[in-house]
Amino acid sequence: MSEILKGAAVIGQSGGPTVVINQSLVGFIEAAVEADAITKVYGARHGIAGMMKGDLVDLGAEDKVTLDAIANVPAAALGSVRMKPVAEDIAVAIETFKKFDIRYFFYIGGNDTAETANIMEQQTRAMGYEMRCFHIPKTIDNDLKVTDHCPGYGSAARFVAHAFQGDDRDNRSLPGVKINVVMGRHAGWLTAASALGRRNETDGPHLIYLPERVFDPKAFVQQVEEVYNRLGRCIVAVSEGIHNEAGDPFLQVYAEMAGSAMAGMKDSHGNVQLSGTGALGDSLANLVKEHMGGIRVRADTFGYLQRSFPADASPIDRIEAREVGRRAVEAATSGEFTSGSVALKREEGSDYRCTTFITPLDTVAKYTKDMPEDFLGKSEGITQAFLDYALPLTGGIEPMTDLAMIQE
Amino acid sequence: MSEILKGAAVIGQSGGPTVVINQSLVGFIEAAVEADAITKVYGARHGIAGMMKGDLVDLGAEDKVTLDAIANVPAAALGSVRMKPVAEDIAVAIETFKKFDIRYFFYIGGNDTAETANIMEQQTRAMGYEMRCFHIPKTIDNDLKVTDHCPGYGSAARFVAHAFQGDDRDNRSLPGVKINVVMGRHAGWLTAASALGRRNETDGPHLIYLPERVFDPKAFVQQVEEVYNRLGRCIVAVSEGIHNEAGDPFLQVYAEMAGSAMAGMKDSHGNVQLSGTGALGDSLANLVKEHMGGIRVRADTFGYLQRSFPADASPIDRIEAREVGRRAVEAATSGEFTSGSVALKREEGSDYRCTTFITPLDTVAKYTKDMPEDFLGKSEGITQAFLDYALPLTGGIEPMTDLAMIQE
Repeated sequence: MSEILKGAAVIGQSGGPTVVINQSLVGFIEAAVEADAITKVYGARHGIAGMMKGDLVDLGAEDKVTLDAIANVPAAALGSVRMKPVAEDIAVAIETFKKFDIRYFFYIGGNDTAETANIMEQQTRAMGYEMRCFHIPKTIDNDLKVTDHCPGYGSAARFVAHAFQGDDRDNRSLPGVKINVVMGRHAGWLTAASALGRRNETDGPHLIYLPERVFDPKAFVQQVEEVYNRLGRCIVAVSEGIHNEAGDPFLQVYAEMAGSAMAGMKDSHGNVQLSGTGALGDSLANLVKEHMGGIRVRADTFGYLQRSFPADASPIDRIEAREVGRRAVEAATSGEFTSGSVALKREEGSDYRCTTFITPLDTVAKYTKDMPEDFLGKSEGITQAFLDYALPLTGGIEPMTDLAMIQE
Repeated sequence: MSEILKGAAVIGQSGGPTVVINQSLVGFIEAAVEADAITKVYGARHGIAGMMKGDLVDLGAEDKVTLDAIANVPAAALGSVRMKPVAEDIAVAIETFKKFDIRYFFYIGGNDTAETANIMEQQTRAMGYEMRCFHIPKTIDNDLKVTDHCPGYGSAARFVAHAFQGDDRDNRSLPGVKINVVMGRHAGWLTAASALGRRNETDGPHLIYLPERVFDPKAFVQQVEEVYNRLGRCIVAVSEGIHNEAGDPFLQVYAEMAGSAMAGMKDSHGNVQLSGTGALGDSLANLVKEHMGGIRVRADTFGYLQRSFPADASPIDRIEAREVGRRAVEAATSGEFTSGSVALKREEGSDYRCTTFITPLDTVAKYTKDMPEDFLGKSEGITQAFLDYALPLTGGIEPMTDLAMIQE
């Protein structure tokens, strides 16, 4: 047991938002205003950037009606930020903490966010400024270590599964090859969710390409052709993170191959820009057109809708996201932990149920979690074990129906 | 009054599907199996193509549970087709009709589909084969003449409005310029629906570009810059159908300008391919990047999700789509009409309510309906009159909420 600190709390939101990230914010606020140890509840605008500038708002002044409404609003209500703070940045933030007597630091985000909390903990300790530092998990990518799954994933997976169900019906109506690009730079969790609404092998997606496997363009066009020849159509799910043996993103390889203007499309971190562009889908569609000729080939890139569409959140994801926010406050004020990340544990039994636990920050920070081998099928698919794992997180996906007189 | 014919009925689905097109199919089936005049209820696979081949299924054999499920499944349950049949094709279909004693022809689709029904009516009359020919309206584009609106539009508009609400929150979280491309080659109805969830001028979309206006790339980048300088971010809604003074699609102009590979991207009708590619959004993003430099610019193309996403249909659209299917059967078997298209009329009063009526096929066939002047705002917007018109069709769009402590 460590001493129960008295002081103000600050929370920030970081990285790409989700549709349930504000559930965690509201869960945190509800618990923090109740906690005896917490004297004041601050929100930092745009995460660590707001902490450095002292751009804080008084979250204790929000009423219950607003909080319940905000919980269902997608994306970071406090604003988000993409910033990996260095020691000097942290030192600036600590000046703000001292000024506002902040002793509790909470940060909602992915593995980079956990790393920021970890650095914050180390640096405040080194400076002798006593502080509780907690990470609250969120990411549609589902690539955090330790936890069974990440809040935000279930809703994104639900959107992707529904999107593929609808697109599969569209493709049955007007057959052709359809390629859909799904978010997930490093891990295939969200792309794999494309299969959650399938009833059988004739339902799309018929091929699924994940970053856990090396992507071979030649095998790709041959596999598409094989499905098309068999079914008269083909739906493909592709992760934006597909890459060659050396780990180079496909789009970069293709762009250099084609000598096109795309070669220069890099974002502010020097990575090839994968989100917010249709270039990957269009490139793959071109490959199929060149290989097969004459047939109808289309590509869609689901884009930011996957993490922001407000009308199709997973009910269970909403509940769990609220809970991890609450749990972080309870852990921080319990005297049992000085820092940590909230994680989910799936309980045994036939009905889905998760409980929360606290894991050290350095077990979650920095690294991402790929899909395990037993979730990966042959090179272009996934397994039943993955479906069993992921389906409960979405709240369930209702199967589509055919006319009884039309059996395919 | 014309004679009440006795005979079988056939129905087909044509053109790009919607999420409620099967509501119309089921409304038709329910009424047709009840109608004394109709001896048998056939569905043609892939529209007129199935009628030509005699590829029919017995829709009277479907049970109620299947029909209720199918009604909520997106895209054409019978399969769709993109085909403008010529006189010889119609003659082949009539051979099928004779063989199955089909005297009732129903075709669900847009203006081209109405034109096919019109030609069918003329040709059967010319051949002395007595036939009732009816068009059942559907299109997400909302561009049919005469009717107040088209079944299918309300659900697509709801999806687009929700998508922009979520994306607006995402863009507030991580500011930048975001361009979203919306379907609608000829008319801006669906793109205009991007504004249905806005509360005020700070909510996106901040700029809306419709095919009813000439698109000027220079004005576009300046308008984006002006909004960005004012709000620190900018969300843009762009119709896939934007074009220059001469009517050439922007993408074609840009591709020729850039001398890029896109210049050759034409579909099977010789049109520049606008759907199923991210090229338009990416081109516009490039223009903004070139003009403004250094800022975060992203583009998404909503693509086929707009017409197929199964989890966010408009409740009122579902009801109306079912009703127009029923109404077509009632009209055809009433003895009052030998042909026609079902249209919707908005009743006076503060509460939204529509009734159906029958309009001659040639009033709906071939031509499309642009947005009227009083729905169009200044070059980059829409009016309150449009919002009042469109909002009830979506079933309502719940406004987003901000934290009370964060007022922008």
